[in-house]
Amino acid sequence: MKFTMAHTNINVLDLDRSLAFYKAALGLDVVRRVFELLDAEVTVRPLVKDGALVKAGDIIAEIAGPSRSILTGERTALNLLQHMSGVATRTMEAVQAVSGTDTKIVDTRKTMPGLRVLDKHAVRCGGGSNHRFNLSDGVLIKDNHISASGGIAEAVARARDGCPHTLKIEIEAETPAQVSEALAAGADIIMLDNMQLAEMKDAVGFINGRALTEASGNMGERDLKAVAETGVDYISIGALTHSVKALDISLKFS
Amino acid sequence: MKFTMAHTNINVLDLDRSLAFYKAALGLDVVRRVFELLDAEVTVRPLVKDGALVKAGDIIAEIAGPSRSILTGERTALNLLQHMSGVATRTMEAVQAVSGTDTKIVDTRKTMPGLRVLDKHAVRCGGGSNHRFNLSDGVLIKDNHISASGGIAEAVARARDGCPHTLKIEIEAETPAQVSEALAAGADIIMLDNMQLAEMKDAVGFINGRALTEASGNMGERDLKAVAETGVDYISIGALTHSVKALDISLKFS
Amino acid sequence: MKFTMAHTNINVLDLDRSLAFYKAALGLDVVRRVFELLDAEVTVRPLVKDGALVKAGDIIAEIAGPSRSILTGERTALNLLQHMSGVATRTMEAVQAVSGTDTKIVDTRKTMPGLRVLDKHAVRCGGGSNHRFNLSDGVLIKDNHISASGGIAEAVARARDGCPHTLKIEIEAETPAQVSEALAAGADIIMLDNMQLAEMKDAVGFINGRALTEASGNMGERDLKAVAETGVDYISIGALTHSVKALDISLKFS
Amino acid sequence: MKFTMAHTNINVLDLDRSLAFYKAALGLDVVRRVFELLDAEVTVRPLVKDGALVKAGDIIAEIAGPSRSILTGERTALNLLQHMSGVATRTMEAVQAVSGTDTKIVDTRKTMPGLRVLDKHAVRCGGGSNHRFNLSDGVLIKDNHISASGGIAEAVARARDGCPHTLKIEIEAETPAQVSEALAAGADIIMLDNMQLAEMKDAVGFINGRALTEASGNMGERDLKAVAETGVDYISIGALTHSVKALDISLKFS
Amino acid sequence: MKFTMAHTNINVLDLDRSLAFYKAALGLDVVRRVFELLDAEVTVRPLVKDGALVKAGDIIAEIAGPSRSILTGERTALNLLQHMSGVATRTMEAVQAVSGTDTKIVDTRKTMPGLRVLDKHAVRCGGGSNHRFNLSDGVLIKDNHISASGGIAEAVARARDGCPHTLKIEIEAETPAQVSEALAAGADIIMLDNMQLAEMKDAVGFINGRALTEASGNMGERDLKAVAETGVDYISIGALTHSVKALDISLKFS
Amino acid sequence: MKFTMAHTNINVLDLDRSLAFYKAALGLDVVRRVFELLDAEVTVRPLVKDGALVKAGDIIAEIAGPSRSILTGERTALNLLQHMSGVATRTMEAVQAVSGTDTKIVDTRKTMPGLRVLDKHAVRCGGGSNHRFNLSDGVLIKDNHISASGGIAEAVARARDGCPHTLKIEIEAETPAQVSEALAAGADIIMLDNMQLAEMKDAVGFINGRALTEASGNMGERDLKAVAETGVDYISIGALTHSVKALDISLKFS
Repeated sequence: MKFTMAHTNINVLDLDRSLAFYKAALGLDVVRRVFELLDAEVTVRPLVKDGALVKAGDIIAEIAGPSRSILTGERTALNLLQHMSGVATRTMEAVQAVSGTDTKIVDTRKTMPGLRVLDKHAVRCGGGSNHRFNLSDGVLIKDNHISASGGIAEAVARARDGCPHTLKIEIEAETPAQVSEALAAGADIIMLDNMQLAEMKDAVGFINGRALTEASGNMGERDLKAVAETGVDYISIGALTHSVKALDISLKFS
Repeated sequence: MKFTMAHTNINVLDLDRSLAFYKAALGLDVVRRVFELLDAEVTVRPLVKDGALVKAGDIIAEIAGPSRSILTGERTALNLLQHMSGVATRTMEAVQAVSGTDTKIVDTRKTMPGLRVLDKHAVRCGGGSNHRFNLSDGVLIKDNHISASGGIAEAVARARDGCPHTLKIEIEAETPAQVSEALAAGADIIMLDNMQLAEMKDAVGFINGRALTEASGNMGERDLKAVAETGVDYISIGALTHSVKALDISLKFS
Repeated sequence: MKFTMAHTNINVLDLDRSLAFYKAALGLDVVRRVFELLDAEVTVRPLVKDGALVKAGDIIAEIAGPSRSILTGERTALNLLQHMSGVATRTMEAVQAVSGTDTKIVDTRKTMPGLRVLDKHAVRCGGGSNHRFNLSDGVLIKDNHISASGGIAEAVARARDGCPHTLKIEIEAETPAQVSEALAAGADIIMLDNMQLAEMKDAVGFINGRALTEASGNMGERDLKAVAETGVDYISIGALTHSVKALDISLKFS
Repeated sequence: MKFTMAHTNINVLDLDRSLAFYKAALGLDVVRRVFELLDAEVTVRPLVKDGALVKAGDIIAEIAGPSRSILTGERTALNLLQHMSGVATRTMEAVQAVSGTDTKIVDTRKTMPGLRVLDKHAVRCGGGSNHRFNLSDGVLIKDNHISASGGIAEAVARARDGCPHTLKIEIEAETPAQVSEALAAGADIIMLDNMQLAEMKDAVGFINGRALTEASGNMGERDLKAVAETGVDYISIGALTHSVKALDISLKFS
Repeated sequence: MKFTMAHTNINVLDLDRSLAFYKAALGLDVVRRVFELLDAEVTVRPLVKDGALVKAGDIIAEIAGPSRSILTGERTALNLLQHMSGVATRTMEAVQAVSGTDTKIVDTRKTMPGLRVLDKHAVRCGGGSNHRFNLSDGVLIKDNHISASGGIAEAVARARDGCPHTLKIEIEAETPAQVSEALAAGADIIMLDNMQLAEMKDAVGFINGRALTEASGNMGERDLKAVAETGVDYISIGALTHSVKALDISLKFS
Repeated sequence: MKFTMAHTNINVLDLDRSLAFYKAALGLDVVRRVFELLDAEVTVRPLVKDGALVKAGDIIAEIAGPSRSILTGERTALNLLQHMSGVATRTMEAVQAVSGTDTKIVDTRKTMPGLRVLDKHAVRCGGGSNHRFNLSDGVLIKDNHISASGGIAEAVARARDGCPHTLKIEIEAETPAQVSEALAAGADIIMLDNMQLAEMKDAVGFINGRALTEASGNMGERDLKAVAETGVDYISIGALTHSVKALDISLKFS
């Protein structure tokens, strides 16, 4: 038996999104893997590539095999595909918002528990870059760490001592004083957290290339173009992965 | 060391939600379990109950123990709590929308892969009810099943033969003709899928209590009050779990 | 190297069974899976179908491949096959006992821990039907639940509130009073537990199609024909799976 | 809430067993483990020891804790306990049958898949001894191995070469000629398989202590006393574990 | 892309080993399995057999496939191969040291946690034999067991009672008195632990074939030829697996 | 029952090591965990701290509990402890060799499969530092990667594009030309691989602080003091973990 997966109901989605196209094709390898685990006889033939733009009505894959197996895997496959396509679409919107600047959109560790690898793959498909995957591929010293360690200098010293020399050290700063302190402590990256635009612009100017800069703090609700124009190197957005509208994709017998 | 978890940044959220209160307290057992798995010395003391209403600034739990363990578990615990609180809040909005009617809000299997038990618990905390958890605790015959079986009668016969007699049989119907056919085939529940309001009201009248009725099809985008007023017993909404805005909750050293 | 699996020693078995034929062919997919996990080079060629009747001396499969792998898997494969064939044979005997009536033979959850899926498959191969697989695909309110909840009405209310609307509710009754109470509480199925034949017949007459009926309680030791003639819809028999005589099947080098 | 587990319905069982007492208390540690995994608040207090004799109506344990958890674990705990008690009772019958001789009753690897450790523990509780647990704690050269290796001498040579020197080597023999050959090949144990009594007695006399002897082959259907009187050291019985009648044990709210 | 694995830097190794050749080819099936788990497209073509002698510069395998997958698996594959080749080389040295005697070199359970099966396979490739794999395929009564049981006789009685009759019983003895006691208790194997050469020779003479003998105790540091000449049947050496010099093997793009 | 763990047989070890003390106490938490998993009643009381120096005869822990459980866990616990203590001792020797310089001793990914976390912990206890744990917490571009990518510039570009910005990039260089190229490509760390001392010293001078430097290539066989005196920041030594002599530690009943 043969089925097709299509992006449907575009008019409903249009009501609250101003896009004509969507990143829907995301995650087709994941769809294939779902069916592979159920039944080796099911074949999945993608009709678009990962990260391609799709519009309402586009058929994105054909699935053939025993209908029992296809119907058993349908929901799991679609749940993954719809979520990942939602992440990619959300990322694409953010990337488009900062186009014309040098700022890169990056994700966070605010991903769905168990799905981090897929969420981060979806971000790349949407044109974004990945921040660290876990606590061991980057050192990010935040307010709680500083409090727990007894100060920025102490926190940095501990990190340098206990971590591989292959990792950069990033420090969170909320005020100009903290930016200055982080720079003095030898931060490789400074996170400008919850700053107003003017303050952020001053910080970027003060740092002046001596460290990378990253804007953070409810960026999913901010004017990304304005943030990018302060000159920050990166904008990290938790909402890319924690507050996602699933893309509407169906499986139809054909 | 001691930390508190609080619901923060309410003013940002206020911009696009008309609620004064949120279902934030959801999932505190899950938070406790995250830390238990990391370090038995960490204690989590919830200050509100699962499903309680919280507003911006409310402290919802106190966490004490070695700061290294707390900071290691922070992100995972918050990712779960914020997502579940988002599901509960979204469900509460839907339940409030149909208040004054007898219609119940139910979820679907469109949950985050790996998190279904938690997603469905969150729906109940938000005042909703659960539809089936998996393919074995309910028989739902949909368009693809009907196509694959060769007709409604055949699909029902197969289901009756292969499934425990403890399960009800639900059939999806998109037209008045299908409603009539499903009733004739002995459906226990009829799903009214993607119908206009008038059509749905007619179907409910025609069925007249001979089967339970469930409205379905992009219900996350519909006027739920109007749907409920057609007299359906249930409205099932995939968006309760597949398109969720995480609640903004932070962990702060205190 | 090549081996055959045969049903042997029928004369010994004949001593305490009045059957000329046995359900031996059961579980050949399971046998194949055992060898697949050990060594992809082993092939299993079934000579009879799942659920076929076999008699002493029948060869039921040929197995070819490296003898080391075949001898390694032999015991596990036979243990499963002999047990499943025993379940199927036992079920067949029960189904034959009620032939000529409308009553169906069903299993219970009294299966071998870890083997429930296989045990229930064997029951179907023997001509029986399956009762629920686990606590989530059917609600069965028994004496202990009623005691724990404070009464039949309370137990049913809790069940309706907490379970998906796709599940039927079954209630255990041991007396005419309890039958009447279960019916009043809206039971979809009433289990007539440990009743004498006359009492059971009266209960079926009283219920009169308003609920399905299921006879239960040491049915493995009862006269099944007599029970069926009371008019019950189902007879559930724990002994189909908990007290099974393995069929005698050997693997021989050929 | 509090429950008791009791051995019930003895009169039914009495119909086909001539015992006044049963090995019912078996497996209470397993019952405790089932509830421990579900809920740490459930306590299990055994009232008899593992392997004790019980009669109908004896209460064998008290279980206290949240009724939801107890009812969730009930079936799994009873399935294990009833099966293990059945194995122990069956073993006790065999051990009693050979009382007055020096012969020991041992089990085989014909155990329920996944439950071997429990099945073998139950055999010991019934007064039996354990044969090897798996292919690596004993070398048993059977007809198929001899065929696959090209003869007894070759099979023994391979075994000596590839196995730790801490293992004994047992060889299956069906005829006097094979017994003689096995002895010549240096077998530590000779299995007398499917022999008539006279033949078996002759073999034991011929071997005369130069190797241990083990009677085998559908021993579950044989006159064990007569077999023991041939002077064999061990009788191994697959039916102890593959064809077991579960003991009837219930959980009651008290 | 294509890579080769070669044994390199022989001149460095030559500095502290007097061998011209090494057992390097060990573990190529393990290497294949590492890549299989990563990517089914990677193929591993061994150029030498397991246990073959290799010298510096020999190419031992060719690996082809997507370079990303090969580079991902490189370190894990080499870590296993280098360690196993080290074990095989160390074993070969020990076997060569006792050549001309009847004594066999055996390993112990002092293996790398998690790698016992591989370590013991490597020992066989190096020409050694395996002692027991775990606590259930041989009974070895050591000083601590004797202390815990209350004496050699008690320890043996317990072992005979609780273990399958397919297992031999080995007892550790450090003095002539203990050797005598072990023999009296019916030991199948006597371990001569930490004895001087003269004492060991006397013990072997005294035992005189009534039990197997095994020399033990820091044998990695002893003159193996002299130990073998005392006439012991086995020398067990923990250092074969716990103190291994990895063989130097590289993967090169070609 | 009570047991002690002690470092024994120092005189044997003295034969080939010039140390008076050893890092033996390493891994006591691991020992505790082994027994915890077997039996909650076993207690482990360390008498020295992780990383402490011990000499022959020192008692390093007391273990109390059921002797059966202690004897069951003995071998696994000792295998881990002896190996980890061997790693720590080997590392201590290397750290002492470079004392008086600013060079740090670091490990590699050449660890025992399955034991990397423990091996790297042991290195830190011996006074060394950790290089990256896996492929995702540091980018190390080696000869094979350069070949596979088509050149240093291409390899660096790929790495920058695909990896989180929190990771440094290290490049392997074997010649002065490659050092220069790596510096031009923006390497954060340059690995000086298999260089002669003079060449290495020149490279360090040429780099002059513009990148970190790491000496590599059979460093387990080199004169570490001489290497350190070239001014490199790090020396990475695979032999710290791949070619380890286990420390001799015993468990004795007391």
